[in-house]
Amino acid sequence: MPTQAQMKAALQSYVDGFANGDPEAVIALFAEDAVVEDPVGTPEKRGAEVAEFYRNAVGSGAKISLDTPIRGSHGSSAAMAFTVEMPGMQISVIDVFTFNEAGKVTSMRAYWGSEDFTQS
Amino acid sequence: MPTQAQMKAALQSYVDGFANGDPEAVIALFAEDAVVEDPVGTPEKRGAEVAEFYRNAVGSGAKISLDTPIRGSHGSSAAMAFTVEMPGMQISVIDVFTFNEAGKVTSMRAYWGSEDFTQS
Repeated sequence: MPTQAQMKAALQSYVDGFANGDPEAVIALFAEDAVVEDPVGTPEKRGAEVAEFYRNAVGSGAKISLDTPIRGSHGSSAAMAFTVEMPGMQISVIDVFTFNEAGKVTSMRAYWGSEDFTQS
Repeated sequence: MPTQAQMKAALQSYVDGFANGDPEAVIALFAEDAVVEDPVGTPEKRGAEVAEFYRNAVGSGAKISLDTPIRGSHGSSAAMAFTVEMPGMQISVIDVFTFNEAGKVTSMRAYWGSEDFTQS
C-alpha cells in the first residue's frame, strides 16, 4: 500500500501537471486499467479515454488551485478539494483517488455538479 | 434522485447537527441500511453502529467547520471538505455521501489519515 506521503505527492503532481500544461505527467500517475468518473454520475472513462480526457483538459488551459490541504485515509485512497480556473469561469470540485500497490491511481472520481460553477 | 439543493441541505444539516450538539438530527439523515466508513480503510459501520457512532461523535463535543463550499455531482452524491475541531486538536477531512431516491444518505465515507491531524 502506498504511504500517505506517496499518495499526497501524486495528487500534488496532478495539480502541478495542470499548472505546467503537461498532460503526460498527469497521465503517468494512472494505472493502465484505471477508471475516471468526472463528474460523478456520468459514464466512466477507461484506458485510452483517460489519456484523451487529460490531454483535452490540460490542453484547454485549465488550472487547479487547492482550496485546503490534500487529505489521505487509513487505506489506499486520498482526496482533495480544489477550484478549476478557466477563462471567465471557476468550478468547485472534490476529487477522490484510489491507488494500487505500485502507487498508481486506479480510480479518480470527481464530485461537482451543474451548480458548482461560478463566473468571474 | 434528490436535487443538488436537497443533497447540499442534508450535508449542511450534518454540519449543523454537530454545531447544535444534536446527534439525532444527524442520524435522521441516514437510511436504515446506510453504511459509514470513517475513516476510509477501517471497517464499515451499519445500522445501530451508525447511530452509536454519531451519538459518540456529537457527544464528544466535536464541531465541524466547512473549509470550502459543499460540492454536488451529476448523480446522487455530494461531498464536502471540512475541519473537525476538538479541544487541542483539528482533523482535516473530506466526506463523500451517496443518497437514495428518498433523499436519505446510503453511504458516508470519510477521507482522513493519521497525518491529517494538527494540534492547536
